[in-house]
Amino acid sequence: MLNEEDFKGYRGIAKSVLKQMNARVWSDVEISSTRGIFRGIILPRAETLDDKFIVMKLRNGYNVGIKADSITKIKEFDYKKANYQIPEKEFPYDPKKPKVTLLGTGGTIASRLDYRTGAVIPAFSPGELYGSCPELADICNLDTKKLFGVFSENMGPEQYKELSKAIDDEIKKGVQGVIIGHGTDTMHHTAAALSFMIQNSPVPIVLVGSQRSSDRPSSDAAYNLIHAAKTAAYCDIAEVMVCMFGPTSDIYGLLHRGTRVRKMHSSYRSTFRTIGDIPLAKVEDDRFIYLRQDYKRRRTDTNLNLLPFFEEKVAIIYYYPNMQPDIIYSLIDNDYKGIIIAGTGLGHVNKPLYNPLRKAVENGIQVYMTVQTLWGYVHMYVYETGRDLLNLGIVPLENMLPEVAYIKLGWALGYKSNPEEVKELMLSSISGEITPREQLNGYIILQGGLPEVEKFLNHNIL
Amino acid sequence: MLNEEDFKGYRGIAKSVLKQMNARVWSDVEISSTRGIFRGIILPRAETLDDKFIVMKLRNGYNVGIKADSITKIKEFDYKKANYQIPEKEFPYDPKKPKVTLLGTGGTIASRLDYRTGAVIPAFSPGELYGSCPELADICNLDTKKLFGVFSENMGPEQYKELSKAIDDEIKKGVQGVIIGHGTDTMHHTAAALSFMIQNSPVPIVLVGSQRSSDRPSSDAAYNLIHAAKTAAYCDIAEVMVCMFGPTSDIYGLLHRGTRVRKMHSSYRSTFRTIGDIPLAKVEDDRFIYLRQDYKRRRTDTNLNLLPFFEEKVAIIYYYPNMQPDIIYSLIDNDYKGIIIAGTGLGHVNKPLYNPLRKAVENGIQVYMTVQTLWGYVHMYVYETGRDLLNLGIVPLENMLPEVAYIKLGWALGYKSNPEEVKELMLSSISGEITPREQLNGYIILQGGLPEVEKFLNHNIL
Repeated sequence: MLNEEDFKGYRGIAKSVLKQMNARVWSDVEISSTRGIFRGIILPRAETLDDKFIVMKLRNGYNVGIKADSITKIKEFDYKKANYQIPEKEFPYDPKKPKVTLLGTGGTIASRLDYRTGAVIPAFSPGELYGSCPELADICNLDTKKLFGVFSENMGPEQYKELSKAIDDEIKKGVQGVIIGHGTDTMHHTAAALSFMIQNSPVPIVLVGSQRSSDRPSSDAAYNLIHAAKTAAYCDIAEVMVCMFGPTSDIYGLLHRGTRVRKMHSSYRSTFRTIGDIPLAKVEDDRFIYLRQDYKRRRTDTNLNLLPFFEEKVAIIYYYPNMQPDIIYSLIDNDYKGIIIAGTGLGHVNKPLYNPLRKAVENGIQVYMTVQTLWGYVHMYVYETGRDLLNLGIVPLENMLPEVAYIKLGWALGYKSNPEEVKELMLSSISGEITPREQLNGYIILQGGLPEVEKFLNHNIL
Repeated sequence: MLNEEDFKGYRGIAKSVLKQMNARVWSDVEISSTRGIFRGIILPRAETLDDKFIVMKLRNGYNVGIKADSITKIKEFDYKKANYQIPEKEFPYDPKKPKVTLLGTGGTIASRLDYRTGAVIPAFSPGELYGSCPELADICNLDTKKLFGVFSENMGPEQYKELSKAIDDEIKKGVQGVIIGHGTDTMHHTAAALSFMIQNSPVPIVLVGSQRSSDRPSSDAAYNLIHAAKTAAYCDIAEVMVCMFGPTSDIYGLLHRGTRVRKMHSSYRSTFRTIGDIPLAKVEDDRFIYLRQDYKRRRTDTNLNLLPFFEEKVAIIYYYPNMQPDIIYSLIDNDYKGIIIAGTGLGHVNKPLYNPLRKAVENGIQVYMTVQTLWGYVHMYVYETGRDLLNLGIVPLENMLPEVAYIKLGWALGYKSNPEEVKELMLSSISGEITPREQLNGYIILQGGLPEVEKFLNHNIL
């Protein structure tokens, strides 16, 4: 006799179909539908907008949603809920090891199923984490705190502020480092926010997540967590950093400065890249390789500047050809306080936007220019059109990334009310968000480069 | 006695300062200002918004605008207007060589000064081009036509349509290839537009420009033009392509497919990159190296499908954390017909946007999802939030680049009025804008890679 737990999260059509076909959550089944035949585990669902899909975890580890009304048959092979339980063991305490706190925001990187399916039995308590990743106990004494459970794309100013206060609390209590478990989608935005809200930290603040859930063979979850724990416990870099999988087939982590990092691939494990520069360090099994010397060092005091402010009426205008004035006028009408333009080339937009931009500036909106090429600097003195925009009162932000500029402007407008003070904050590099020059070896090339491609080709002579 | 020509383009304060200090356009001067001392040539100015700056070409080749009211002294060393004249020679005709037409849009790549200062004596007629770049006559019989003179960021649908018709005309007349001279800022947008407006071309259509004006020693102008002429005249790839400087210290050109290319650096010569794949070919001094086989071959007929359509009420919504619903509601109120979202991760936006997006779809606005990571695919079946957005009627566009999706949607909505037909066009790969998979060697790594960095470091053991 099936009960409500067996249809967890399902309602409407989807639930009816499950009932009708005698199928249940956690069953290992074969689903026949008009779209094909699928073999996998039926997952429970989180509270959601729809009642149309039955979600299953395929054998290759991917989740897939199958339209309930396309299903013709469900054949059950097995029922193995127990497989998804994580063995829980008491996290051993070693007085000789550093203390580290892991703050959870919703990205439970060491779960047995992906955190966003709602199907997760999350590994989050120290005991669960130890059970699923025993190496952690060799590194540090781990404590965990769940701050909130939101998807990464729903993180915003309220969460940034709360998170920065929680980090401050932990550091005041004397931990040797803080780890933040975070979904990868907006990890770089949160890293930027923390870089401005927490200044002068005495210890590493490490954001970590995973691109592949930990029940998949290629998961990066455990490696990333181990690298992040090592960094929090021992690394000399007392900055806000993203710690994620490096870009080769070797397994190592990279530490990216929180204001110079961006997610650059929707699915690869090596998605995070330091833009316009090289990463701060590499985390290997047995060592850190410090790639640069320009970082803030770990200290033994517990002082820092906590500045948890954010003005929410800020927007990024990502320029595209033929952009219409109404886009800017709407922001003025809706009372925006700040605009970050991601312009083309050295920082340009088309002429029809000049009038609305002038009006925006006259209305006291702070307008700044960044480049949508991502690599390189704004240079508005080079061309007439750039100088026209300067004359309108648009301020160039050097090589600050558009997303970082957005976060920084929200923070600066929340922090200071005097426009000149806001501008001064925007133009000074507080946490490495503006660099005096971009390294040639921080620019992109093809993986392996053209020589690798050419090796396999016959040369066609002109 | 100075005359009006000597102050060309100047008015107001700037003109007064020049007059007062007995300085004139084309003088080689030293300007002392409160910002410092500058040595270079005073340039004439184009029609412009401001009367505040005096523009000079510094000796390193950069242009700089100096605020007129900050100038304390101008000392003239020389007056050498004549230096900026290009020697004009008749372009030799060789009946054995292919015919190629260069269409100008405003980016006069072979000018002696930067095209956007207004100070240019542009090398554009075949005779001028031959005078400044005699190698061209070894390649082809070149004809030139100036279509318009707009800055790249002011290119838009009207120019795309006119340009595609002009290309059609040239091909019908039997040229072996067409070159488009174009500013680099939005070259990839125009390349995408032409990829949809001109389908099934029998010959190469090559966009070319330069990142550094041709009077600078490091200019890429002549190389790019020569590579583009070779491509138009002899290359076997009959597609819309961007031909620009390659990414190494060797001098070669790369041919990028018009729908997979993006400007990725605001100032480097090697700014254009094929995203998620390798380029189509390499252009060397004496040969093409075809890097792939999946291109459309040159033909001897003169047939093509000309589809010069564009609906202008289309926007890109580049998602950022805490994006407010008013951004979407404004687009609905302003009667937009299409929206391209550049979402985070696999294609996500925050929950507060669900209601306005639902309303947009209900109002008949076509809404499509792309990824702001640029590399990788949209996968909206993987997470609940993605499925929520699918249920709202938002359509994923695989790995189509956000800018390409914007251009394509404008084109498709202009071409077809039936929503289902538009959607069908959007989801089929017309000119390589969607690829079945992304090559691992089309993803980014650091120039030289980490091993290069590590060579210079001592390893710090944990």
